[in-house]
Amino acid sequence: MHFARTPSPPYFAVIFSSKRSAGDRGYAATAARMVDLAAGMPGFLGVESARDNDGFGITVAYFDSEEAIRRWRDHPEHAAARQRGREEWYEHFELRVARVERAYGADTRHG
Amino acid sequence: MHFARTPSPPYFAVIFSSKRSAGDRGYAATAARMVDLAAGMPGFLGVESARDNDGFGITVAYFDSEEAIRRWRDHPEHAAARQRGREEWYEHFELRVARVERAYGADTRHG
Repeated sequence: MHFARTPSPPYFAVIFSSKRSAGDRGYAATAARMVDLAAGMPGFLGVESARDNDGFGITVAYFDSEEAIRRWRDHPEHAAARQRGREEWYEHFELRVARVERAYGADTRHG
Repeated sequence: MHFARTPSPPYFAVIFSSKRSAGDRGYAATAARMVDLAAGMPGFLGVESARDNDGFGITVAYFDSEEAIRRWRDHPEHAAARQRGREEWYEHFELRVARVERAYGADTRHG
């Protein structure tokens, strides 16, 4: 499942852009665990993620409120994973929190 | 250049998530052209893009205002490219327009 099934706006998006360092070192398992953990948080609406072959990736997680984002940020297991990310998994990252104002989706003739 | 060098918030993000259909059919050349064209638009701040091997991708374009997003949407060459996208290049897509409220970036010890 690639696409997040989000409700009508407004809601919030956490846009995480990152460049992976070489080697896995537990990254893939933790990333999968974080998706499961986030999905169980109150206010979680969905997540979308893509990563190039050269290690550049974008993950967008959707939440219904700023409060839900704060709860996710403060979850101890997520905080520990972020620390490992800074120390081991990413060369650089950018995190942006945004309020989704409007949205539009379409299946095409190929969909 | 993967990361967009955006200013301090607030600014706006156009989050485009898409699943490509099989075959190129002019997609790669047009995608590159659209990046060049967007970069020349007033109010354009940057773009980040990643796509998985299975054809799921996320592109986030940043603009300084809603007005700049409207100008980009209304550019005739961009409108023509979107039409081809619906007809030929994408199985499904989701477009979200969001206001970036806060941002944080870091080089890590690997950066």
